[in-house]
Parts: sequence; C-alpha cells; structure tokens
Amino acid sequence: MREIQVGLIGLGTVGCGLVKVLEDNGELLQQRLGVPLRLKKVVDIDLDRPRPVNIPREVLSTQVQHILEDNEIQIVVELIGGMEPAKTFLLDAMKRGKHVVTANKALLAMHGSELFAAAREHGVNIAFEAAVGGGIPLIRAVREGLVANRIGRIYGILNGTANYILTRMSQEGTTFAEALSGAQKLGYAEADPTLDVEGVDAAHKIAVLSSLAYCCEVDFNHIYVEGITHIDPLDIQFAKDFGYQIKLLAISRSDGKRIEVRVHPTMIPQEHMLAKVEGAYNAIHISGDSVGDVMLYGLGAGMMPTGSAVASDLVDLGRDLVAGSGIRIASLASEERAVACRQVKPMDELVIKYYFRFVAVDRPGVLSKISGILGSHDISIASVIQKGRQVKGSVPIVMMTHEARERDVRMALAEIDDLPVVTSTTRFIRVKKNESVEESQS
Amino acid sequence: MREIQVGLIGLGTVGCGLVKVLEDNGELLQQRLGVPLRLKKVVDIDLDRPRPVNIPREVLSTQVQHILEDNEIQIVVELIGGMEPAKTFLLDAMKRGKHVVTANKALLAMHGSELFAAAREHGVNIAFEAAVGGGIPLIRAVREGLVANRIGRIYGILNGTANYILTRMSQEGTTFAEALSGAQKLGYAEADPTLDVEGVDAAHKIAVLSSLAYCCEVDFNHIYVEGITHIDPLDIQFAKDFGYQIKLLAISRSDGKRIEVRVHPTMIPQEHMLAKVEGAYNAIHISGDSVGDVMLYGLGAGMMPTGSAVASDLVDLGRDLVAGSGIRIASLASEERAVACRQVKPMDELVIKYYFRFVAVDRPGVLSKISGILGSHDISIASVIQKGRQVKGSVPIVMMTHEARERDVRMALAEIDDLPVVTSTTRFIRVKKNESVEESQS
Repeated sequence: MREIQVGLIGLGTVGCGLVKVLEDNGELLQQRLGVPLRLKKVVDIDLDRPRPVNIPREVLSTQVQHILEDNEIQIVVELIGGMEPAKTFLLDAMKRGKHVVTANKALLAMHGSELFAAAREHGVNIAFEAAVGGGIPLIRAVREGLVANRIGRIYGILNGTANYILTRMSQEGTTFAEALSGAQKLGYAEADPTLDVEGVDAAHKIAVLSSLAYCCEVDFNHIYVEGITHIDPLDIQFAKDFGYQIKLLAISRSDGKRIEVRVHPTMIPQEHMLAKVEGAYNAIHISGDSVGDVMLYGLGAGMMPTGSAVASDLVDLGRDLVAGSGIRIASLASEERAVACRQVKPMDELVIKYYFRFVAVDRPGVLSKISGILGSHDISIASVIQKGRQVKGSVPIVMMTHEARERDVRMALAEIDDLPVVTSTTRFIRVKKNESVEESQS
Repeated sequence: MREIQVGLIGLGTVGCGLVKVLEDNGELLQQRLGVPLRLKKVVDIDLDRPRPVNIPREVLSTQVQHILEDNEIQIVVELIGGMEPAKTFLLDAMKRGKHVVTANKALLAMHGSELFAAAREHGVNIAFEAAVGGGIPLIRAVREGLVANRIGRIYGILNGTANYILTRMSQEGTTFAEALSGAQKLGYAEADPTLDVEGVDAAHKIAVLSSLAYCCEVDFNHIYVEGITHIDPLDIQFAKDFGYQIKLLAISRSDGKRIEVRVHPTMIPQEHMLAKVEGAYNAIHISGDSVGDVMLYGLGAGMMPTGSAVASDLVDLGRDLVAGSGIRIASLASEERAVACRQVKPMDELVIKYYFRFVAVDRPGVLSKISGILGSHDISIASVIQKGRQVKGSVPIVMMTHEARERDVRMALAEIDDLPVVTSTTRFIRVKKNESVEESQS
C-alpha cells in the first residue's frame, strides 16, 4: 500500500483541527503508520467561511459525492455532527466498503446499533475515539486496555463547558448566568449552550461509554438527564461546608444484570480525584473488577485535542489497512452474539445520599415538621446546617441524608414543599456514593 | 482459529494475577476476542509454594522447554522479572516465531533495543502494557491514542511504594523510616525496598516510556536517579508552607533534539493534578502538541491490576492472530528507520527552580553570607523562610530560588557547606517547572 486516502466531510472546528494535525505532524504520522495519510477530498457546504487552515482549492468541494463515489478513498471522516445527513453519509460510505471515523456522539447514542450493524454487514470499521472525551484516549482504554475487566462503574466529567461554569461559580461565587456569560466570552461555551448545560451532551457520551463498557445497547430515552442551570452559588457554598464539590457527573453502573445510566449535578467528596478536575477539563473514572480504579483526564473538546483523537483513529484504521486485518475489533469490542440489551434501572429505585436545601420561615418547630415528614418516608438525616443567612424573612435549612430511595425523596419533598412555612421549592442534589474498589466486583 | 494457546513463565504475584483474571473473566475475554485464551502451560522453578490460584497439575511444569518447544503455544508470557534468564527465554520464544508478552521494565529499559530487533527479525510482536503503570492502559495511550502528537513532556508518579511512603510522611509527619516500616507491614513495600525507594524502578519505567514517546533509544546509564530516602519530614512541611507537595517524579522532556530523562524528588504546586495523587496510586501526565495535557491515573502495581494489563496484551495479540495481521504496530510504534538515538542532556545543564534548606548557626550575617555566595553563582532568591525552630543551636533557613542552572547550584552549595557557620549539609529539592501547554509545542 502506497498511501491511505482519506475523505473528510465537515470542515468546522474539529475538521480544521484534523487538517491542522495532519499538516503539522504529517511526517510523524507517516513514520508511525508506515505510509502517508493523504487528505484527498474535503467537503463542506460553506467553503467561503474564513478558516485557520490552508487547503488547496482542488481538494475542496461542496459535493459529498466527490468523497463517497471516489473508489480510491478508503476512509471517510464524518465531522458535521447531528443526525442527518451525517447518518446517511456514514451508512452510504460503509455500504461502499469504506471505513469510517466519526466524532458524532449524538448520532452514536441515538443510532449506534444501526451504524454498528452496517459496519458488520459491510466488513468495515467504525472508529469514534473523538466522540467521548475529546483527545483523551478513552474509547481505546475501554475497548482494549481494560478489556479483561468487568466494569462496574463509570463516573465521568464529560462536558467541559459545564465543568468550566461550575468551576467559576465555585471559585468566584458567581451565579450560573454570570459564569455562563464569562464562558461564552472566552469561547468555552457556545452562543446556544443548551446541550452542554442541560446535560444532554454528557448523556450522549455516557450512553456511548455504557454500550462499550457493558457490550450492550442502551436506550437513550431511558437515561435520566438533569443539567446545571438551577445550581445556586449558595448550594456550592454549602457543599463546600460539608466537604464536597458539585460537578455535572455522568454516571453508569452495572450490577451484572441491570444498569444505571444518568447525568445530574452531583456532590463529590473534596478528596476524590474527580472533585479536583477544574475548568474545561474532562475526567473519566472507571472501576473494573481486575484493574480497580482508573482515571483518565484531559481536554474533552477543542479543535486540536479532538483533531488528535480523529487522527489517532485514522492511524488505527490505516494500520489495519496496511496489515490487511479487516475488522480486527468489532464496534462494541465483542462478538455480536454477546451484545445484550441491558435494562436501565428507573430513577425511582435509586438508593443514595441526598443534599437538601429547604427555604422556610424563621420560626420554631419548622425543622421538626420537615424532619417528621422525612422520617415518615424512611429518610434519615445525617447532618443539618441552619445558618443565619436570612433572606426576606426566610432561612435556608441544609441537610445531608443517609441513603434513601429516590422515590421516597420525591414524595417527601412534594409534601414538604406544600407546607405553609416552606417559602420556596426545595433544592436537592444527589451525593456520590462512597465506594471502595471491592464493591464493584459483582 | 479455534483457540489461542498461551504459555506462562513465572508464577509469582503478577503470574497469579494473570491466572486469576483468565479464570474469573474467561468467558468475557472469549466474547471480546472471539476465541478462547487457553493457558496451556505454566512454568515456575518452585511449584510447591502456596499460591492463591488453582492450576491443574498437568498444566504446571518446572521446565521452560515445555513452553518454548511446544509448537502449539502461540504466545509466551514472561513474568519472572530481572535480566537473566528472562531475556534468553524471550529471545528464544521469538526465535521460534512466538509472540511474547512481558511486564519486565528493567529488562526493557536495559535491553529493549535487542528485544525489539529480535521481534522485528522474527516477525513477531512484543507487548508490554504491564511494564509501566500496572493496570493503567498507558503504553497503548502513547503508541496509539496519542500517536498524532509530538510529545513534549512526561511527568510520572511511577512507583506506588515511594508515593505511599511520601503520602504517609506528608499526612502523618512521620520520618521516612517509620513510613517505610508501615508500608512494609501493609504489603505496600517489599522486604528489600531498594529499587522502589531509590528511584531505580521509576527510572526503568520512564526509560521505556521515553523510548516510546520519542521513538528513540535511551541509554539507561545516562538517566539521573535520586530516591526519597533522604527526604526529611521538615522538608515536606516547608514544601507545604510554600504551596507544594513532594513527589518522586519521573521526568522526560524533549526539545526536539536532545531529551531530559530523570527521576528525583520534586516539589509540585499543590493545585497540579499530580500533587493530588496519593497512596499507592500512579499517575502519568503527558503533554502533546495536539492533545494538550492528558493524565492517566490508577494502581501501578499489584496482582490484579497488573494481571489485567497482561491479559489486555493477550487479547491484543490474540486479535492480531485471529485477524492474521502480523506485526500491525512495531515495538516502538514507528518505522525502524525513524528510530533515532536521542542524547540525554547532562544534569549540569538543567535550568529550573530549587528549594534549599540550610542549617546554620543562629547568628547575624549568616543569611547575607549564604545569599552572597548564591548571587555570585547567578542564583537569585525568590523567597526565604527563616523559622525559629532552633535545634542544637542551629536554625533552618529555607529558600525558593528563581530559575538557576544545576551546575551553578552544585558549586554554590559546595561553597556554602564549607562555611564554618553552616552546621550540616544543605538539602535541596528540585521544583517542577510551571509550564503552559503552549511551551511544549516545540
């Protein structure tokens, strides 16, 4: 093989990152692959936008057929994002026997099974290192490095924008809105930050990771998703008082039968490595029955880190092409017959610790009323802080519970919020389980 | 292919870990590989020792020929450690066309080139994920995940024993000897801890990592190695006062031409992720020109984590065998002709910040004398702490310098230690450079 010919669909931020990596480190990549990676065609609907890379005019096109119908192109990289036309392009490329690379976590989370089936059917590889954790070599870690483990838990800080906002709120005491606006000014948040701050992006990523970790299909609609827009600086301060940091955590756990997959703000003990992940960084903490706890940390987004991950997939597929090894690792890194459909446990059944912040009138007997209702729902209190921060005649009462059932918590809080002495809706934040490695060995 | 037949040489801690992983997760491994991994023969010189695994009598042998001469065995795992006979066994196995797996960092550091050349000559793979960072999928990260990066720096906490001891000293204020003895009682340190506490083990590992990161041969004898036996609880306390943690750090840097490779106690700013790595954990912080900063964290030793890494290599080589892909990735993940011999920069040329602890008589003019000598050697002081902790008429004078040259530091300290007012040998600890990602993009 003289060279590997590559077609790139989508010249946005990540696309430009890939072009730049291939440009900057082309010689290095050739040494490591044995043959050159040649970017033969780059397709985008808008070629007039100013971009930070120089691509020869003859390489550019607005017609995706110039990639799909080119029989010399062996690998197609899809970096346009979203459902359509990305899905059609990928399916078409695979049908024509081309290997594909994608960073499209939303598409993988919603239609992964269909894409993986197409790859199997057409005897091609689908690589997606850049879909989760940006430049962090995470997909490889799960599919290969930790292959000898039954994975019990994954905790991920998977969205850099949300983590950046929470870090600023924690360090500067600002509100969510202020921190978001600061993040937007610095380019850490998009003009429409919904997918990031509402937890949807992190949910896409944990869905993909869970599929890989448990060799299963995960129904995205069963994933509980809660964002960080309602996090109050007061809660961040109280969390610190109790020895915790609040992070938007993507959580995935398996008891060997059913799985938990959820994304929500979570209080993490300050001494846990995940509590120390600041700014736009991502980190993924994985517990396996052999390896124990492993954590991977790095930039989960950005032009160059994501470009680095896409380029690593190109080298990987290129090595397969050079070695003639066909599908060396299946999409879910497992035999087809072993891929199961694993039921996602309903949130109602969750049993964990909770943080509550009640806002009530400053009057004797209020705490007793609240704790009475909690008790009647089997929720026992671990500690209480009642601080003199009176706002408009009300005071916050802050509690940490022992382990309680989510369903009971929801019922108790509904009842408490109906009390005349309670002046606004109770805030609650889930608390990370305190686990030892041993517990994961189910 | 019906199954992959494996021979294991060495049934110590890691060997037993591998057997246990194959036993516990055999079905999972088969699903992920497509065919069973069969441990056909296990060889050890002492079969009578009690071990935590049950191996059928007919699988065990004391004769290594039972593995090497068995034509059905496709992969040989070497887990005896040390130079000989490990090297001879590996070379013999490769000569017979067998792929090999080893966790032997000392052998790879000293004779890696010879082993890699043999693998190339005989068209076989040599896998060594378990050699560095135990269960952390680190070798894969460098060879594959970060393949599109020019790596500028690696900082590693690569020895769990040393990190456990320093963590205890830091948390409990104990001496090195007390912490070591505690570590030995809990099984975190061996009866003879020399290789761990003197930094030699970490040096083996950073040599292997450097070879991979820069695709080069590294002369082990040019690596500067300093252990932690001389670290005083006083220095740990002063480090904290300045905002640092002391870690045994393995450091590897490239300026594109020469490389730095060294192991020594290092003061790390408390807010750096590496400063937060506690106990027996390892962590490796890598800076690449595309990916920025990435860190991998986990247990760097132990029966099961290391067994997990060895098993991942078996699956990797098994996948190559099933796919018929031969040598898919060269040992140093690069074409042979691109492998260079990179000169290790002499320590004398190092330019970094230093921590000094002088012990001098409590008399006016002493500080002026010391700082005069430092100044005459181009060493400028960033801050000084002179605390009233008088011991036998002497007081410690503690300083942080601006960037200075190691050669100048050594000369200045020799001169200072000759002063009559200086009552014992000056302690110095190197301080981690404060770097941004950009600097690594050389």
